Amino acid sequence: MAALSLSELANIIGAELQGDNNLKIRNVSSLETAKKGDISFATGRKYLPQLLKCQASAVILTAELANSYNGHNVLISKSPYLAYAQVVAALYPDQRPVANIHPASIIDESAELAENVSIAANVVIGKAVKIAKGVVISAGCVIDDNSSIGENTYLYANVTLYPNTQIGNHCRLHSGVVLGADGFGYAPNKGEWYKIKQVGNVVLGNNVEIGANTTIDCAALGSTYIADGVKLDNLIQVGHNVHIGENTAVAACVAIAGSATIGKRCQIGGASAIAGHLSIADDVIITGMSMVISSIDSAGVYSSGMPVNENRQWRKNIIRFTQLDKMAQKIRALEKRIKNR
Amino acid sequence: MAALSLSELANIIGAELQGDNNLKIRNVSSLETAKKGDISFATGRKYLPQLLKCQASAVILTAELANSYNGHNVLISKSPYLAYAQVVAALYPDQRPVANIHPASIIDESAELAENVSIAANVVIGKAVKIAKGVVISAGCVIDDNSSIGENTYLYANVTLYPNTQIGNHCRLHSGVVLGADGFGYAPNKGEWYKIKQVGNVVLGNNVEIGANTTIDCAALGSTYIADGVKLDNLIQVGHNVHIGENTAVAACVAIAGSATIGKRCQIGGASAIAGHLSIADDVIITGMSMVISSIDSAGVYSSGMPVNENRQWRKNIIRFTQLDKMAQKIRALEKRIKNR
Amino acid sequence: MAALSLSELANIIGAELQGDNNLKIRNVSSLETAKKGDISFATGRKYLPQLLKCQASAVILTAELANSYNGHNVLISKSPYLAYAQVVAALYPDQRPVANIHPASIIDESAELAENVSIAANVVIGKAVKIAKGVVISAGCVIDDNSSIGENTYLYANVTLYPNTQIGNHCRLHSGVVLGADGFGYAPNKGEWYKIKQVGNVVLGNNVEIGANTTIDCAALGSTYIADGVKLDNLIQVGHNVHIGENTAVAACVAIAGSATIGKRCQIGGASAIAGHLSIADDVIITGMSMVISSIDSAGVYSSGMPVNENRQWRKNIIRFTQLDKMAQKIRALEKRIKNR
Repeated sequence: MAALSLSELANIIGAELQGDNNLKIRNVSSLETAKKGDISFATGRKYLPQLLKCQASAVILTAELANSYNGHNVLISKSPYLAYAQVVAALYPDQRPVANIHPASIIDESAELAENVSIAANVVIGKAVKIAKGVVISAGCVIDDNSSIGENTYLYANVTLYPNTQIGNHCRLHSGVVLGADGFGYAPNKGEWYKIKQVGNVVLGNNVEIGANTTIDCAALGSTYIADGVKLDNLIQVGHNVHIGENTAVAACVAIAGSATIGKRCQIGGASAIAGHLSIADDVIITGMSMVISSIDSAGVYSSGMPVNENRQWRKNIIRFTQLDKMAQKIRALEKRIKNR
Repeated sequence: MAALSLSELANIIGAELQGDNNLKIRNVSSLETAKKGDISFATGRKYLPQLLKCQASAVILTAELANSYNGHNVLISKSPYLAYAQVVAALYPDQRPVANIHPASIIDESAELAENVSIAANVVIGKAVKIAKGVVISAGCVIDDNSSIGENTYLYANVTLYPNTQIGNHCRLHSGVVLGADGFGYAPNKGEWYKIKQVGNVVLGNNVEIGANTTIDCAALGSTYIADGVKLDNLIQVGHNVHIGENTAVAACVAIAGSATIGKRCQIGGASAIAGHLSIADDVIITGMSMVISSIDSAGVYSSGMPVNENRQWRKNIIRFTQLDKMAQKIRALEKRIKNR
Repeated sequence: MAALSLSELANIIGAELQGDNNLKIRNVSSLETAKKGDISFATGRKYLPQLLKCQASAVILTAELANSYNGHNVLISKSPYLAYAQVVAALYPDQRPVANIHPASIIDESAELAENVSIAANVVIGKAVKIAKGVVISAGCVIDDNSSIGENTYLYANVTLYPNTQIGNHCRLHSGVVLGADGFGYAPNKGEWYKIKQVGNVVLGNNVEIGANTTIDCAALGSTYIADGVKLDNLIQVGHNVHIGENTAVAACVAIAGSATIGKRCQIGGASAIAGHLSIADDVIITGMSMVISSIDSAGVYSSGMPVNENRQWRKNIIRFTQLDKMAQKIRALEKRIKNR
């Protein structure tokens, strides 16, 4: 953790400074928990009560909010949330391990390692793997044959890559991620399942981040493809031959079935399920725990799911749900009868 | 990847050949992406438009579809999908690592390893473990005491087996699989939870495949049992004392609670949840994201869940859902009033 | 597995003994599977039919049930389920590995290990890590810098701790658990996502158990906090800055989004999803596959979700669901018309 002056931070985030140029900022905190030496932020008027009680030495605000907060140290920014992210990055610079090949790593002699890579203990690297410069591979990762990892990509501990996986530059793969396991493909054969050999791979673009224990299956044929800038949270399943477009973000515990195509800049809420062989347009927002079983052709916000109710009330309503078609027919019958009088 | 002649492929899949016996086939592709040298397939008339544009050198078709596709190289099969799976297997023969015990594996001296096994780097094998012939254990796997693994079973990297796990022949366990962790059992005790020690194990039959990061808990007492031919996708939870019958297939992200019994040849759609202590009959199909909270006694297709709608419309309907019981009462009141006139 | 006399077991669980003091008990079984030498248990009258057929040598019962079961060996307990758990613990004492530092573990010289710890093969321990006495760390675990693990805590194989993770005493972390991976935080920036560096950590209290492949993200700022006695099942996602109160139990496959606060002694059913930035009161029970998108202010049982129906019936009802708001309007119109006559 570094300490920076308020004027240094103003420069970094491109903000207008009101107050003490030389104030030293040591930490970022929420409005509620901030102490002396901290900087905090507020993104809208609804945070005004907390702002007025806040103990931070400085706050990042919109120009409008700054008007309601005179006499304090303020950085004025059009987007305080982005500015907050930039201040965190400035105060907590990335600490990558120094370049080093740990003696307890096991690297096939046919693998190609560029300069300035860091390979931790117990890493296993297979045949003809290519590791670009600046890559970090943490302890216990297994990189199978013919995979390639682009510049400055960071693999946390215990990541597994199956053969032929291709990863772009500046990606982050968190612990327990598995890329390239077999897609779930079987042909029925006399009451048993005949395995459809999965001979494709997984391809990740640049700036992709993948959360802990998320799995992305290899394609049956061709590639499962995750485009530049995609962000996947933890415990997500991406089926074989899925394509996810640029800068789409998917929250935790989402299941995406095989051959689904998801557009660019989508936001998929956590615990949602997306069926296979369908398309979702660009700029679609799907709220949490939604069920998508047909294609979505235009941008917009889509939802499904049933929020909790008291158990007794839910029991009553859920029984009615199973009678819903009959209820609709009763209403129609009533309408007819009344009309006919 | 091998190259095979059309007549060789016809023999392998038991198909009737129309066209050039000696045509060399190098790859399998979908109708849309196939190129010269590829073979493709179509399973029904709905694919006729794509078939007529397809660039493949040969196509696997039903006799009926072949009639609409004269003058091309065709393999006629009763089930083109199964034939496609068999062609993939023929063109991409299994490449298992050569038998070898990696010097960086750590194997207890009481473990019994049959001939022709492959143990990769950083594998840890405990006391009295039995590994049958032809088994492959990839890097980073941990096989705890008294476990046994049947012939030709394949463990991908970073699989964990708790003590006493029994695995049959010809199984595949993908990376991150955990078999035998403690079932979730606690007895309430003065506001705290008293752990019920889980002293059972996990038993897998033959030809079982388990997807990446799937977890199967050990039984509280006895065995959690997965029968022959069962296929489990990624990120599935199987609770303690669950029994899954032969040749049942479960798609990704399904939660199966403790002591559930699932029949033979069932198909469970992804992201479904199955409550504990219930039974599901043989040949039950459950569509994706379904909620099963009572037993299902007869074969058939069962569903629940609510597909997405535009967010505004969903909000309106979901409020009405919470009033559903009242709506039904209002309809009944209306019916009475009209009757009484 | 030990063998204990019925009178020894009666002492251990504080039960009244009816029958043979010296009877040797070797195993615990369910009513249905019990054999000679086993002890079983029944928690209520509904198990009377199974009890009357049970082959166990002894049974743990409430006083009321014991009255219906004369002439057998019985331990009378106020809570037979808890007594059963205590008997399992007595018959199957914990078998922890003997204290030992495996030569194939890799431990930074700045790490502090107390006496009587067990570190297995291929464990990697980073800088300034503190391991208290009696801790067991199984094969393949990676403990990153500045983490601390309290007394007698048990890590099963292939657990990953990110830097600065703090774990209390007497915890159990099952295989594939990942603590401290980055929370899912990004600020939108010109159609891309600007990463919000996650600089907090994960803190676990005492007596916490975490199931296989569960992930708990580090806080953006501060700590993600899991209080004493919390039990988490497998494949759960806990987002950044979540707080879970004492003795709350969460079943498998639950998704808990960032900054949610969950009270004490709650029970969250499997496959539920809890949105971010909300609060759940103490003593709340949420049934399985529920969707919580707003705060719950008082204790009680809450539910949502739609149980399965035959697919044909579900299709009809789900179409009606999308017309629910219109149905309600029709009912209102009918009510008006009838009133006006």
